[in-house]
Amino acid sequence: MRLDHRRQRDARITTHVCLTARALGASGVFLGGDQDEKVMGNVRDVVKRWGGDFTVEYRKGWENLMEDWKNRGEIIHLTMYGEPVQDVVKNIQRSTKDKLVMVGGSRVPRKVYQEADWNVAVTSQPHSEVSSLALFLHHLFDGKELEFEFEDGELQVIPSAKGKTVIKHERKDTLL
Amino acid sequence: MRLDHRRQRDARITTHVCLTARALGASGVFLGGDQDEKVMGNVRDVVKRWGGDFTVEYRKGWENLMEDWKNRGEIIHLTMYGEPVQDVVKNIQRSTKDKLVMVGGSRVPRKVYQEADWNVAVTSQPHSEVSSLALFLHHLFDGKELEFEFEDGELQVIPSAKGKTVIKHERKDTLL
Repeated sequence: MRLDHRRQRDARITTHVCLTARALGASGVFLGGDQDEKVMGNVRDVVKRWGGDFTVEYRKGWENLMEDWKNRGEIIHLTMYGEPVQDVVKNIQRSTKDKLVMVGGSRVPRKVYQEADWNVAVTSQPHSEVSSLALFLHHLFDGKELEFEFEDGELQVIPSAKGKTVIKHERKDTLL
Repeated sequence: MRLDHRRQRDARITTHVCLTARALGASGVFLGGDQDEKVMGNVRDVVKRWGGDFTVEYRKGWENLMEDWKNRGEIIHLTMYGEPVQDVVKNIQRSTKDKLVMVGGSRVPRKVYQEADWNVAVTSQPHSEVSSLALFLHHLFDGKELEFEFEDGELQVIPSAKGKTVIKHERKDTLL
């Protein structure tokens, strides 16, 4: 969940948060704050072109979401004030339940810190919710997220030492 | 090096690129594209408050920088079209020379792909230069970047399971 999205200021950062979540193995994203159809449309467009399943949902009330999630699994809040990811990730991995990862937001309410099962820091230095999310998912998935395959995309990159190689697959629209 | 910064569009993403570079162990950043004193000032302000050494320089010409760097060490260009980071990082680590890491830029010139020693992909999916840089540095430094300490900062976070703990150090201004 991306907390407190502001349409003017955060459009690109929020888009990068969503795409990072998708590329590194999350199953979907909830957007809080301003309801920004443009950002959500851009992310859904990437899903359509590049494949895989990834859900994009607007959630005005993060409090309800946190409340609901308590019955479903763990809540991890990423913050530079939390416990080092490298120290706590093994404990977080022990539960096989669903994980809700929350990222700020310029001002994250105190309640998020209190209600989260884990407040996790990717270094205690200021940097970015995008890099924090990337490194948290990398730790959570033990590097396996880098091998993740996305099915049914229109576009696929073939890794290359120099230059760009992209395969464009035929659209598999059914004609039934 | 952050290529092709555009003042209007990229201010926050470029700031996140710079802060990610700093937090995860890079020694400095070169900014290309628009000369943006505000972004550079914001990053320098973080260095002043949070400590450590980190240089911020404007470089109009990335071509000169690449040329110069060939005598100094390796050039790594991060791109979703490159070779998987997990496959090539061991080879990159073999050289103890300085590393120049380049990130785009909406349109990276073909010459960057050709002149770079390595074109490296953090997944072959579209996401973010911020998350790509974070995961590349994490691989390059084998996770040691998470333990890096920043000296002489005014502010220091003490990791905490709930809430925020920040120590404010006395400024050590000399009176000589």
